[in-house]
Amino acid sequence: MRITALAGGVGGARFIRGLLHHLESARPGERVEVTVIGNTGDDITLFGLRVCPDLDTILYTLGGGVHEGQGWGRADESHHVADELAALGALPQWFSLGDKDFATHIYRSQLLAQGLPLSAVTARLGARWGLPDQGVTLLPMTDTPVETHVVVTEGGEQRAIHFQEWWVRHRASLHADRFVVAGLDAAAPAPGVLEAIRTADVVLLPPSNPVVSIGIILGVPGVRDALRGTRAPVVGVSPLIGGRPVRGHADLCLRAIGVASTSAAVAGLYADFLDGWLVDPADPMEEPPSGSAPALVRRPLLMSSVEAAADIAGAALSLAESRADRRGLGGGR
Amino acid sequence: MRITALAGGVGGARFIRGLLHHLESARPGERVEVTVIGNTGDDITLFGLRVCPDLDTILYTLGGGVHEGQGWGRADESHHVADELAALGALPQWFSLGDKDFATHIYRSQLLAQGLPLSAVTARLGARWGLPDQGVTLLPMTDTPVETHVVVTEGGEQRAIHFQEWWVRHRASLHADRFVVAGLDAAAPAPGVLEAIRTADVVLLPPSNPVVSIGIILGVPGVRDALRGTRAPVVGVSPLIGGRPVRGHADLCLRAIGVASTSAAVAGLYADFLDGWLVDPADPMEEPPSGSAPALVRRPLLMSSVEAAADIAGAALSLAESRADRRGLGGGR
Repeated sequence: MRITALAGGVGGARFIRGLLHHLESARPGERVEVTVIGNTGDDITLFGLRVCPDLDTILYTLGGGVHEGQGWGRADESHHVADELAALGALPQWFSLGDKDFATHIYRSQLLAQGLPLSAVTARLGARWGLPDQGVTLLPMTDTPVETHVVVTEGGEQRAIHFQEWWVRHRASLHADRFVVAGLDAAAPAPGVLEAIRTADVVLLPPSNPVVSIGIILGVPGVRDALRGTRAPVVGVSPLIGGRPVRGHADLCLRAIGVASTSAAVAGLYADFLDGWLVDPADPMEEPPSGSAPALVRRPLLMSSVEAAADIAGAALSLAESRADRRGLGGGR
Repeated sequence: MRITALAGGVGGARFIRGLLHHLESARPGERVEVTVIGNTGDDITLFGLRVCPDLDTILYTLGGGVHEGQGWGRADESHHVADELAALGALPQWFSLGDKDFATHIYRSQLLAQGLPLSAVTARLGARWGLPDQGVTLLPMTDTPVETHVVVTEGGEQRAIHFQEWWVRHRASLHADRFVVAGLDAAAPAPGVLEAIRTADVVLLPPSNPVVSIGIILGVPGVRDALRGTRAPVVGVSPLIGGRPVRGHADLCLRAIGVASTSAAVAGLYADFLDGWLVDPADPMEEPPSGSAPALVRRPLLMSSVEAAADIAGAALSLAESRADRRGLGGGR
């Protein structure tokens, strides 16, 4: 079986870890290939080093190196490099990078400078974290550097800041007027991305931010068409519980693009390719008329543990199986 | 008073620290400007980051951040970045870089990538370590990247390796046939280097390696001529005690260029500009015929403490003062 998932950071990483946990117990011995297409829209260059927050969160989470409490970064981290950079007056000082984490960025930057594409670098990082042994391939959505900027209004004046500055430094407290993803129009999908969507048996959308994670991946030319055209059922997990994200600022991101912070509205963003949609009981959503996509399943969506995430992933796979015939009929929409 | 010194790594750094200690006690309140011209011939790019071992040793030593036992690197260092780079399989693994030290290289590399010359970057690093407050200006010998390669014979075959690989990895155990300093012929002295030599009241050569430290600085076009032409007396401190270096491998470096490992032979390398020469009593050296340069002073040269180094620096200054008239007579040689 081939499963392809589009993923942002913490929510995506925890869902994929749950998926692997589910597969291990529910389908022992079966060869399942999981391809994760990771968001690189919030990548940033700090201190001259290329940082890919979402890819790293997935690597650290699947590799057992993540700081569980934070959901990102490395466990047992120290901050000697960052402290010394602060002593040197290097900017910015609002982005926390631990020492082990720095090594990832140094390694990535060195290989990028040597001419390796990000996908090749990510494959090497994946090997360090044992992804191949888990049947997982992590692909960046694109090898083209893209950066998300947020147009904010402050004191009556509009200006654009890097997404990470908005997200991390200001904790999304500045009103976001819109998101501009520099380079996205001209970004080519990384090698294997479109194929992984087209040839998958199941495509999953983990509970990632629909605007600045999944939404950015969908903006890579060709990805949305591949999702519309794939014969695999596409099943998503709502990132909202009771209209609010479990973590992060999906509600504020939705507001910025003029979309209501409801699971129904998020499903609407995926309407042209979504076959199934998992919604938390706490999230109000009308059942769609019979026969229309997506099929709804209500179940608790709080990934409070690896086991809870595994159960959610199992439910997503079950829903996908029940919708497997949809795509075969017309050969895509 | 303006003092200019040419310096390599540990020996140079400890001598300069002693010099500052001497000036503070012997000439309290007097404004003394000390310009240190640092060797960059053993610079190396590791993990995509530019490392300047000699400049950093001077910065850390004068700034009070050096690991006293080692003589280089930072005190109270951890190695989390290096450990993670090793886990990633990044090469090389024979060069020890601590976490705080990494911050220096990250900062330097970022500024170099932004287009700042090494001299401007070094000035910023100097400010972090309080050099201006000590009246010290640290200049790299050149802003042009140069690298020292060592031609070695191993198993009957000749090959060139980076100086640091020879020095650190092989601890100079491979027979060095010769040194090749890539880029040195075309290297321009960094801004202020020639002026600092020409306008100094005293020029000092600390007990640094005469081949791969002082010798490289002398190879920067214009430096040797400036030393010949300056009106300041030039006084050096032999790096040998009993024919052997206190640390490092000056004896092996001298052998590679066909020069005896004696204080007399080292003085011979500087014969065209040297006015005074401090030699340890343990180092056999014939007194030169009266009237010929350099004037010899015998005294213990082991820098066993800051105070010992201060006394040696004081003796070098005294010797320089006694030779101050030499240069005035003929207006340089």
